[in-house]
Amino acid sequence: MSGKLYGLGLGPGDPDLMTLRAARLIGAARVIAYPTLAGGDSFARAIAAGLIAPGTREIAISIPMSVERAPAQAAYDAGAAEIATVLDAGDDVVCLCEGDPFFYGSFMYLFARLSGRYEVEVVPGVTSLTACAARAGRPLVARNERLTVLPGPLPEDELRARIEGAESVVIMKVGRHLPKLRAVIEALELTAQSAYVERATLPDEKVMPLADAPAQAPYFSMILITKGADPWL
Amino acid sequence: MSGKLYGLGLGPGDPDLMTLRAARLIGAARVIAYPTLAGGDSFARAIAAGLIAPGTREIAISIPMSVERAPAQAAYDAGAAEIATVLDAGDDVVCLCEGDPFFYGSFMYLFARLSGRYEVEVVPGVTSLTACAARAGRPLVARNERLTVLPGPLPEDELRARIEGAESVVIMKVGRHLPKLRAVIEALELTAQSAYVERATLPDEKVMPLADAPAQAPYFSMILITKGADPWL
Repeated sequence: MSGKLYGLGLGPGDPDLMTLRAARLIGAARVIAYPTLAGGDSFARAIAAGLIAPGTREIAISIPMSVERAPAQAAYDAGAAEIATVLDAGDDVVCLCEGDPFFYGSFMYLFARLSGRYEVEVVPGVTSLTACAARAGRPLVARNERLTVLPGPLPEDELRARIEGAESVVIMKVGRHLPKLRAVIEALELTAQSAYVERATLPDEKVMPLADAPAQAPYFSMILITKGADPWL
Repeated sequence: MSGKLYGLGLGPGDPDLMTLRAARLIGAARVIAYPTLAGGDSFARAIAAGLIAPGTREIAISIPMSVERAPAQAAYDAGAAEIATVLDAGDDVVCLCEGDPFFYGSFMYLFARLSGRYEVEVVPGVTSLTACAARAGRPLVARNERLTVLPGPLPEDELRARIEGAESVVIMKVGRHLPKLRAVIEALELTAQSAYVERATLPDEKVMPLADAPAQAPYFSMILITKGADPWL
């Protein structure tokens, strides 16, 4: 009988924001897997580190940095093949993923390759979306309000149109797109309603009004625009 | 010195999907608070039930059923006043909230009334958004895809316009709006890409293609539309 594949969401960064289920599955795992960027450290592994038992086998899937997608696809192909070998031998594999596996998570690429052939359980996690809102003290949506989640790399006109169509907007993966995003938000006169959050829930977290944001933003940063169109008091 | 107010997200329903931090705070709480609908059972309390210590004081805030908002506002005013009395006496209060406190969560109404006067910590939780995606086996968004979250009660033309502008759309609070939502989705020829999920992660959960959805949906039900415009393999 084949083993079972788990895709675990580990939450935004603070290990305390992991679910009880994720914590237990990590502690009991004999084989874990996670992606690393070009062989570097794995953020997901760092969140789980305190729970990984000694002697656990680790499959690190090194994803090359490249604008083209073929090299990353080949890396996920190879990683999926290695995981499949373990599953075929009857052992379970626990894949670690920061945030939630199905919300911009790397586990999606393994899920696409393995879910037809093996039993898979996806354990949802706390997303950076609500973690950032919690840390910034800004409620996202109430009642019949609409929320839009946009990746920062989108073009300006697309961002503008989508920001106008929702009460709350979360912009993920800010990084080097920060100057463009600030300009779009300023043109829409929404800077005063916007917060900037970097590395939410981690010891070096930054939370501030967008107007005070630093000149450079890391990949794990976010802008929250909460227009509060529906007064919920 | 005043006590501290905690707003805890408890996740979608399965107690195992609570965060480690939420579980610990509930176990240590001397006073908990939660809303109930017209004095009925509290879903949030049911999720936490196994962790509440004997002798814990419980503040149940009964929210009247009413289309008008004034009666609910008065109930939250009274609940906030009772919580404030505990905080003024120097004790902490742990407010229970299904899902995430700032994602259509009832804690927002208490936060609005108390956050200026007391220290508040919001503990984010797993939202029904990613829990439903996990249970349905449908990745939500990858790379530069856009996600839109819409409440089912919105009017048809608004739903249509917003569904067209994102790769993935999650419709919350389906309930009695199911027939209208099915018609809108069918008119957009998206029924085949849509899943229906009811009471995700609970023992009586239902997960199926939208085409097979029952005629009647409860309030805690959701439709996921995943167009997969960006082929993520």
